[in-house]
Amino acid sequence: MQNSKQLVDGRHLRSIQTRLKLLEAARTIFLEEGFNKATISQIIKLAKTGYGTAYVHFTGKDDLLIVLIEDVMAQFFEIAQTPFFPRSKEEARGIIYNQVLTFLKLAESNRQMMQVFSEAMGLSPAIKTKWEEIRQKFIEGITRDIQYSQEQGLARTDLKAEVVAPGWFYSNEMYQWSIVSNEHPASLEEIAQTLTAMYTDGLYL
Amino acid sequence: MQNSKQLVDGRHLRSIQTRLKLLEAARTIFLEEGFNKATISQIIKLAKTGYGTAYVHFTGKDDLLIVLIEDVMAQFFEIAQTPFFPRSKEEARGIIYNQVLTFLKLAESNRQMMQVFSEAMGLSPAIKTKWEEIRQKFIEGITRDIQYSQEQGLARTDLKAEVVAPGWFYSNEMYQWSIVSNEHPASLEEIAQTLTAMYTDGLYL
Repeated sequence: MQNSKQLVDGRHLRSIQTRLKLLEAARTIFLEEGFNKATISQIIKLAKTGYGTAYVHFTGKDDLLIVLIEDVMAQFFEIAQTPFFPRSKEEARGIIYNQVLTFLKLAESNRQMMQVFSEAMGLSPAIKTKWEEIRQKFIEGITRDIQYSQEQGLARTDLKAEVVAPGWFYSNEMYQWSIVSNEHPASLEEIAQTLTAMYTDGLYL
Repeated sequence: MQNSKQLVDGRHLRSIQTRLKLLEAARTIFLEEGFNKATISQIIKLAKTGYGTAYVHFTGKDDLLIVLIEDVMAQFFEIAQTPFFPRSKEEARGIIYNQVLTFLKLAESNRQMMQVFSEAMGLSPAIKTKWEEIRQKFIEGITRDIQYSQEQGLARTDLKAEVVAPGWFYSNEMYQWSIVSNEHPASLEEIAQTLTAMYTDGLYL
């Protein structure tokens, strides 16, 4: 029994190691080649494993990238769920500024993988769907936050929360992509401050 | 001389007709297949012409799409250059509302070709560059408009025009793509009205 258990554990351990080697190799190849040019054969060669083994662990390039970027995505979901119960316009401004800055900084600190992700979005429906989920989660969260502010008498009620929310997220999202591609016109702090000022002065009373 | 001139004109006419047949065929194939799946061989088959002839007129799929979408692109450039000399916040709001609505309507009335264009952007650097030009033209125009409003004492001066402008264009652009993919949460008029209200109340005094 002892031997059989050790054998299973040994197999399991090797399986985990292979998975990690494949992920590590995929990261290297994606960063070197970009998503489109990267091939599974380059990845398995670097990971010193075979096609069959690779496909036991991952269904393909998209799948590898999604796993590689999972912790970044988890951080996006977390920002989207920032608690938001301001008691004044100024408190709202403070929370929103921090949320925007954290969002922009996440792109900056993961710039290279986000570049690969951005390239992959145009090529892989699975990756596009992944980003769409994040976008929807943000838009839902923002809609809730606007409705809360409207109910508290802090925000104007002549505009619909579900029409304001996408417009606001789009500004943040696209600024984030400009940070990913290193083409932003100001520091992250100034971008966050400008976006927040326009938004809170446009929406809050 | 008469005969020779007729011959040249005849050739020229046939060349124009071939070009138009190729464009017409490309439009049909792009709308049926999308950009990625469409092939030059499908296009020349439908246009009843050969590879050699096709490559006399166009360098490839990207080139065909760029020519097909040229008049839409020209209309975008025109909107980006809307004259903007408001004398009050209310006048600014009126001009901006019309500009936004025209912009969104352009996407709606060219939805199918814009869908092809959007797909092609992720695949063709030439088409991505084309859209980047339009985006830059808009951001430059908006920056000028904000600076004008600031100089006239109509807009707040604590924010930099070149940081406000991209954020504002991004909201419009992404809303436009949501219209292209038929996923917008409200009528074009309500979107334009909401975007304009948030923007002018956030920026103008």
